[in-house]
Amino acid sequence: MSKTITFGEVLMRLSPEGYKKISQSSTLEFYFGGTEMNVGASLANFGNEVKHVTCVSDDIVGQAATSTMKRYGIDTSAVIRHQAPLGLYFLEVGAVMRSSTIAYNRAHSAFAGIEPGMVNWEEVLEDADWFHWTGITPAISEGAWKTLEEGLKKAFEKGVHITADPTYRKDLWNYGQDARSILSGLLRYSTVFIGGVNEINEILGTSYTGDREGFIEAAKTLLKEYPNLAKVFDKVRNGGNASAQKISARAWNGKDYLETEALEVAHVVDRIGTGDAYAAGLIYGLQHYDDQKTIAFANAACALKHTIEGDVNLVSVAEVIDVVEGNISGRIKR
Amino acid sequence: MSKTITFGEVLMRLSPEGYKKISQSSTLEFYFGGTEMNVGASLANFGNEVKHVTCVSDDIVGQAATSTMKRYGIDTSAVIRHQAPLGLYFLEVGAVMRSSTIAYNRAHSAFAGIEPGMVNWEEVLEDADWFHWTGITPAISEGAWKTLEEGLKKAFEKGVHITADPTYRKDLWNYGQDARSILSGLLRYSTVFIGGVNEINEILGTSYTGDREGFIEAAKTLLKEYPNLAKVFDKVRNGGNASAQKISARAWNGKDYLETEALEVAHVVDRIGTGDAYAAGLIYGLQHYDDQKTIAFANAACALKHTIEGDVNLVSVAEVIDVVEGNISGRIKR
Amino acid sequence: MSKTITFGEVLMRLSPEGYKKISQSSTLEFYFGGTEMNVGASLANFGNEVKHVTCVSDDIVGQAATSTMKRYGIDTSAVIRHQAPLGLYFLEVGAVMRSSTIAYNRAHSAFAGIEPGMVNWEEVLEDADWFHWTGITPAISEGAWKTLEEGLKKAFEKGVHITADPTYRKDLWNYGQDARSILSGLLRYSTVFIGGVNEINEILGTSYTGDREGFIEAAKTLLKEYPNLAKVFDKVRNGGNASAQKISARAWNGKDYLETEALEVAHVVDRIGTGDAYAAGLIYGLQHYDDQKTIAFANAACALKHTIEGDVNLVSVAEVIDVVEGNISGRIKR
Amino acid sequence: MSKTITFGEVLMRLSPEGYKKISQSSTLEFYFGGTEMNVGASLANFGNEVKHVTCVSDDIVGQAATSTMKRYGIDTSAVIRHQAPLGLYFLEVGAVMRSSTIAYNRAHSAFAGIEPGMVNWEEVLEDADWFHWTGITPAISEGAWKTLEEGLKKAFEKGVHITADPTYRKDLWNYGQDARSILSGLLRYSTVFIGGVNEINEILGTSYTGDREGFIEAAKTLLKEYPNLAKVFDKVRNGGNASAQKISARAWNGKDYLETEALEVAHVVDRIGTGDAYAAGLIYGLQHYDDQKTIAFANAACALKHTIEGDVNLVSVAEVIDVVEGNISGRIKR
Amino acid sequence: MSKTITFGEVLMRLSPEGYKKISQSSTLEFYFGGTEMNVGASLANFGNEVKHVTCVSDDIVGQAATSTMKRYGIDTSAVIRHQAPLGLYFLEVGAVMRSSTIAYNRAHSAFAGIEPGMVNWEEVLEDADWFHWTGITPAISEGAWKTLEEGLKKAFEKGVHITADPTYRKDLWNYGQDARSILSGLLRYSTVFIGGVNEINEILGTSYTGDREGFIEAAKTLLKEYPNLAKVFDKVRNGGNASAQKISARAWNGKDYLETEALEVAHVVDRIGTGDAYAAGLIYGLQHYDDQKTIAFANAACALKHTIEGDVNLVSVAEVIDVVEGNISGRIKR
Amino acid sequence: MSKTITFGEVLMRLSPEGYKKISQSSTLEFYFGGTEMNVGASLANFGNEVKHVTCVSDDIVGQAATSTMKRYGIDTSAVIRHQAPLGLYFLEVGAVMRSSTIAYNRAHSAFAGIEPGMVNWEEVLEDADWFHWTGITPAISEGAWKTLEEGLKKAFEKGVHITADPTYRKDLWNYGQDARSILSGLLRYSTVFIGGVNEINEILGTSYTGDREGFIEAAKTLLKEYPNLAKVFDKVRNGGNASAQKISARAWNGKDYLETEALEVAHVVDRIGTGDAYAAGLIYGLQHYDDQKTIAFANAACALKHTIEGDVNLVSVAEVIDVVEGNISGRIKR
Repeated sequence: MSKTITFGEVLMRLSPEGYKKISQSSTLEFYFGGTEMNVGASLANFGNEVKHVTCVSDDIVGQAATSTMKRYGIDTSAVIRHQAPLGLYFLEVGAVMRSSTIAYNRAHSAFAGIEPGMVNWEEVLEDADWFHWTGITPAISEGAWKTLEEGLKKAFEKGVHITADPTYRKDLWNYGQDARSILSGLLRYSTVFIGGVNEINEILGTSYTGDREGFIEAAKTLLKEYPNLAKVFDKVRNGGNASAQKISARAWNGKDYLETEALEVAHVVDRIGTGDAYAAGLIYGLQHYDDQKTIAFANAACALKHTIEGDVNLVSVAEVIDVVEGNISGRIKR
Repeated sequence: MSKTITFGEVLMRLSPEGYKKISQSSTLEFYFGGTEMNVGASLANFGNEVKHVTCVSDDIVGQAATSTMKRYGIDTSAVIRHQAPLGLYFLEVGAVMRSSTIAYNRAHSAFAGIEPGMVNWEEVLEDADWFHWTGITPAISEGAWKTLEEGLKKAFEKGVHITADPTYRKDLWNYGQDARSILSGLLRYSTVFIGGVNEINEILGTSYTGDREGFIEAAKTLLKEYPNLAKVFDKVRNGGNASAQKISARAWNGKDYLETEALEVAHVVDRIGTGDAYAAGLIYGLQHYDDQKTIAFANAACALKHTIEGDVNLVSVAEVIDVVEGNISGRIKR
Repeated sequence: MSKTITFGEVLMRLSPEGYKKISQSSTLEFYFGGTEMNVGASLANFGNEVKHVTCVSDDIVGQAATSTMKRYGIDTSAVIRHQAPLGLYFLEVGAVMRSSTIAYNRAHSAFAGIEPGMVNWEEVLEDADWFHWTGITPAISEGAWKTLEEGLKKAFEKGVHITADPTYRKDLWNYGQDARSILSGLLRYSTVFIGGVNEINEILGTSYTGDREGFIEAAKTLLKEYPNLAKVFDKVRNGGNASAQKISARAWNGKDYLETEALEVAHVVDRIGTGDAYAAGLIYGLQHYDDQKTIAFANAACALKHTIEGDVNLVSVAEVIDVVEGNISGRIKR
Repeated sequence: MSKTITFGEVLMRLSPEGYKKISQSSTLEFYFGGTEMNVGASLANFGNEVKHVTCVSDDIVGQAATSTMKRYGIDTSAVIRHQAPLGLYFLEVGAVMRSSTIAYNRAHSAFAGIEPGMVNWEEVLEDADWFHWTGITPAISEGAWKTLEEGLKKAFEKGVHITADPTYRKDLWNYGQDARSILSGLLRYSTVFIGGVNEINEILGTSYTGDREGFIEAAKTLLKEYPNLAKVFDKVRNGGNASAQKISARAWNGKDYLETEALEVAHVVDRIGTGDAYAAGLIYGLQHYDDQKTIAFANAACALKHTIEGDVNLVSVAEVIDVVEGNISGRIKR
Repeated sequence: MSKTITFGEVLMRLSPEGYKKISQSSTLEFYFGGTEMNVGASLANFGNEVKHVTCVSDDIVGQAATSTMKRYGIDTSAVIRHQAPLGLYFLEVGAVMRSSTIAYNRAHSAFAGIEPGMVNWEEVLEDADWFHWTGITPAISEGAWKTLEEGLKKAFEKGVHITADPTYRKDLWNYGQDARSILSGLLRYSTVFIGGVNEINEILGTSYTGDREGFIEAAKTLLKEYPNLAKVFDKVRNGGNASAQKISARAWNGKDYLETEALEVAHVVDRIGTGDAYAAGLIYGLQHYDDQKTIAFANAACALKHTIEGDVNLVSVAEVIDVVEGNISGRIKR
Repeated sequence: MSKTITFGEVLMRLSPEGYKKISQSSTLEFYFGGTEMNVGASLANFGNEVKHVTCVSDDIVGQAATSTMKRYGIDTSAVIRHQAPLGLYFLEVGAVMRSSTIAYNRAHSAFAGIEPGMVNWEEVLEDADWFHWTGITPAISEGAWKTLEEGLKKAFEKGVHITADPTYRKDLWNYGQDARSILSGLLRYSTVFIGGVNEINEILGTSYTGDREGFIEAAKTLLKEYPNLAKVFDKVRNGGNASAQKISARAWNGKDYLETEALEVAHVVDRIGTGDAYAAGLIYGLQHYDDQKTIAFANAACALKHTIEGDVNLVSVAEVIDVVEGNISGRIKR
């Protein structure tokens, strides 16, 4: 059983029922999530031993967030408590051509207050063989960046597998540092790249196109620039809208270009966390399968997440494999 | 900023959760709506100053209806209270080929008891530049008809823009007068016609066909008969069912035939009030855009309303313009 | 097994959750009730064969009302459908010193439209041995009064037991007839009087006081004036407020004055229908017990109804007897 | 008016809201259903007089199940109460390619404890002209099988129409008897077969293919082997998934092959009980229409059930006929 | 009709249903409130013209907060929008001896970012005759303090009535200034003091006792020190717990000591905002009644608020007067 | 930090909202609980390391039960999965004099199927210093009894503290063994007795009275008969009903009689699990305090549980200590 470490902010997500707006509602449904925790929870659900490192508020909200992680089977022994609120966001869910709208309240969160030295990385990384990080974390605050760097260095030294999902979310970078140089720096301590042409162009300052050829060229260039990286995994959304999606996966593993057929999700239940489901699927695949089956597994996991409510992909390995094997009739399982 | 007057009944709509029937439920979700108020609320949301003239019950239900109008930013200073219940209806929501079912309780409503002289039209119309009415109001009671006529005359004299949506709802006409002659009479005090071939045939006693040519001919004849009317705006539903719709808009502006591309709403959240969303879109368009952009705006507003719960189109001008510009991917807005 | 006939309006009751006001809510909880139907449902629950005679709307609401009666085990074969809405009321629930507020919408209900000749009383009364009526029914409309009178006459002729609860609800009497003379007339066809000094004074035009002596004198006078009446049953509320009640029962059976100890209900769950629970308890008691046990049973039934949500007293005979026997500890029954 | 007898277990179905998993929920929605009761309830809704014979728990759950049957207009005078829990199952609803998951708790249910002699079949079958059974009942327990056999023999003797839906649900057969020989035996007391090639192959031990020709051959062979059977009715699901279905019906009536066009249900509200809706539609059709209209009615009933929440098809005959006549636009009915 | 200005933060309150903890819940009920806005909303409900001056987030949450104020009939034309989240708090509701727990997230709220110059006080105060402030506002941030001071000075110059409720909430004062000197300074621009011995001791640095004599002495000293203050109004909680309260009011009006009888609230529905209800009752009383009736009105308003869900006292003047007149039986109002 | 082992069945509890009956509801609220797990969860909440040993269904319900235990911070590594349903019960909540009603479905549960040898007690008990058992477990099945005995023997040998709560629940003992002799046998492996005169009389076949003297005599006799037992802890309910309780605690510690003052819970939120809260309070007290403070802590914990929804006492040590110290005003904690 793999032991995976994830590090990142846990947010509370608050949204009105169905497609309502806050001004039409008197209650809000809530979930705790966060891109890295979502990956960890999905991996825990797939059978990994998972420890999530984060910093939560020292109050009833932080307690509830920690309870939720426990519920997902995540080891919370490295969760820090801090005298600041838990980050949160409000979500009004869109439909068809109407976009979902998000309002964040995370700028002064407990996690944003994390500082190097607060996490005992040596202890956290004991026996770990996987570490997953994303571009969200270094964007939150200088302390978050430095703490991540601290952990990544130690993990890289120990030979842990490190998956990087260096998404660049412009709005988050508010502490006056250059996103590209920070993300590039962190990428030096990673072994697998999760991202597509946009992310590669962002890191390298290049302008590859999004088609197959562009992707292969971009991936090749990335692997040359970052010899520590062995593979590049991308997911593709073909058209679609807030209620229907069509997704596929592709990869460059340093030798071959691989891709999956597209899966159609004509009824989207919840779009949040689908990318995280893909990342978790990839990691599980890399732990158990060859690259071709890995992307099929990741793509199926991602598709299935669109049918699950909340941030976390609660499907089992067996359910994913079912879809990988083409069983998409959705017949009742008695 | 335009100042718009709407006049009509506010109804309470009561429906079981989801697709349930009343006999399966123990709670009912409710909204306050009414075709003219819906138009007013959408215009208020778009930035118009809106005053809705109506008569509500002098009880806790009427109070709640008035609170709701205030919440939408509607000026309720001309709302009358009357010792009779607020009109209401029960709605069981259909899906796919199963129709929604409505049961009305409005025949002896507070609004049905309105009488000429109860509304101070002089005061209401001060500074107003738009008045919107529909064929529902004169169908409710003789008092409602006469009160509308009173207001329309005054508005017409003052040179206010007057949009008429003279829908003919047969079941409502129960007070022994001839619908056609009443609607025709009221149309004399209007400047824009919202309706299609069916409505025109109803008014004129003609039998134009519903295709492009039929529409143009019908519109031309109407404008000749009612020289006070300058333009005719129609919306078209192409097939579809209770769960999926495809809509477009067309117009005859006295000179040109204009039409939009169809917008597909493959997942209908709430069909009630989509025509009102179209009317509000039209009015806003006429206030700000040329005719072509006006119908595109109205059609997009109508499409978006299908994704909004409740009677009122709560989308913003920016959201409508997004769809007008072809951004229909429904991506999350952070 | 007794076969009981009840006759009266079935209303839909709509109320916000908990202690909210309509203007704070987006859903309403609903129940179907009506004083006579409540009595019938409680008796059906106690094991009586019960037929409720009423007139409901010929729509989805009337269907749901009928389904509810069936669910309670009431025979609905004599329910008439009529092209008018079901009567309904909105209830905002009070607490402590804050009163509950009710807004009615029943003036033009399906039941108000009932007319003599619409009920086949001969068939309805076949094998019946009990008939229960209240002062609400003749207050609703002339048709309701006349139809009740029609049924009462036939039942009285057949020697059926007839319980009269001639509550005088002033606001309801709107069709221009004199309540007192109508109620007095109907009382001639009754065998048991349910009511206290207020009701007797109303009927007789007297002014007896509410104390024990006053009650006995009033009851004696009533029985003298209406020799068809054999007994008078009253219930007493001692102080209390919207959240807490203390109740007892008393009777004059033509010979003796009887009374019960008070039962305290320190936490009122639902106050609606408690008087109906008392009436049903009385009827069941008269069918099975002596007068002393009858009032104890009725008082306990009434107390228990305060702990039941909705209009109908859903407790069993065994639960009532438990309280009659002094078991008021409310211990869990496994 | 036909009088139909149904016999089988009533189960409680418990499921989280929407597409949630139990571990994400704090409440469960529940319905009472059961394949034969569902057929009965739909027929009661269509106007049949229906008596459902079953055995429920002698507790608050069994009471609620019985109340629900009454609500549907089912005669519950032959419902037995037994000191064992009501059978139940938990359902997590799937979407698109994700299957729904069911966990049963029925092995030691009240119904499983039924024994021959407990049902007074003579009384139950008085005046009955239809009896419907399914392959679920004999699978539950030896007592259930024997009790069904008892009833079927008597019904067959009386010349009652008997519809058999001998679904073979492998997981249920746990009491050590051979399913095929038991189902074959029961089929001797039936007049109409509801099922397709799979069910026929199961019974006959054959291996006909699922295409048109295979179906006709299988049906012919079945009718030859079971001369008491007059007709074979099948329904076909064309592809689809948990959120969208396409269905049609076909039949061999001993002389002709009949089939319907496919109906598309692009938005599935609730898939449970759709087969039962088909069976009820068939029975109603056989009571009123020719075979071609019968399968059209059954197919339309089945399609409509996909849009109804809960186990029971609550649509009216008029709604089904509407779809049979091609009115599938789902327009609001006011 | 009085025109009242209130100024202060609007917060979102989020709490689990009933007495649950966040970790037991999947939804949260929410209300918008804030001590000064609560006072304003109650006064609007009593018939005052009320303008609330505040700063909300420029997002979907701020929009909903503004809608809510409109719903209460508050003039929101002076509401500022700011690029920071709306302040909020989580509330787990206690019962009996278990305290409610609150977790705040307001330190970097939109309102905390308000700065002098952002409010056009001249315009805001036009025609105003009442201004209400509390000690919460200057505690939030230096900007909030200075903006309040700006407004108070102008109002005081204009001779507006100014009610001060200078509650000292220690935890809020985090920007490094001395609470006492700031509150004392603001008190110079006030005409009525709402508070008791604790508040007076805090301001004056005295140590008066809480009994009647102590209160009178404290009040006298306060009025001497602050000659601009004319009267002191206090409310008293006698024992009680999270589920039951007993409250009374007392005052020193510069000449006489006045007090009310205690009102018992044996079933607390919602304790939040009860002090604000008292303040609003006081202001309304001062506008309409003598001092004795004023405290009776304020005390009754406060008692009634304990029976209302949410932050705002939604009772009418008539309901308050009813309690003032001793009608505390809570009988249903039909 | 103590390491506590609990062993027993986990049940799902399903109940309608508020005070409704199942027949009035369409949803059920659910919790997972079980007397020993409740004790474990409360101790985990107080800071103990807790491992709960149990056997759950191998399905979605068992998964959810396990998730819930994780959420409470319970170590679930010794949870067994078994092919049988999770035990469950339905609860209709009573009020005032109306009892709650429970209907069980646990006779053939996964836990009832546990057998000696299935639990690796050696591993489970590693480092453990506390073991808690109740009389429910041996009542469930012979396998449950034997498995408990197996564990108790090993724990007793290891010198672990063993708290016995040998409640005798007559209805559960259905496998043909003598409850008294089994309970007596298990008591030999225990060090602390939780129970009162009823339980002692049951075990010893004596008939001590429930007053102070009777309790002391009974306790003395028990300790003489079972020299392994050191102390006897009892809790007392003084009158009360389903909505209000008054509780105190008393003990005989082999030397002294100790007792607490009574705590009044005038508003009961949830009565289930209050005895378990007492037991957990006792165990925590015995780990940290002297006997007098231990019973005060246990009594306060028990009182507080009456204000908590669900089976588990979610209050913190600090909240309990607050009540122990007399802070019962329930003031809001900000």
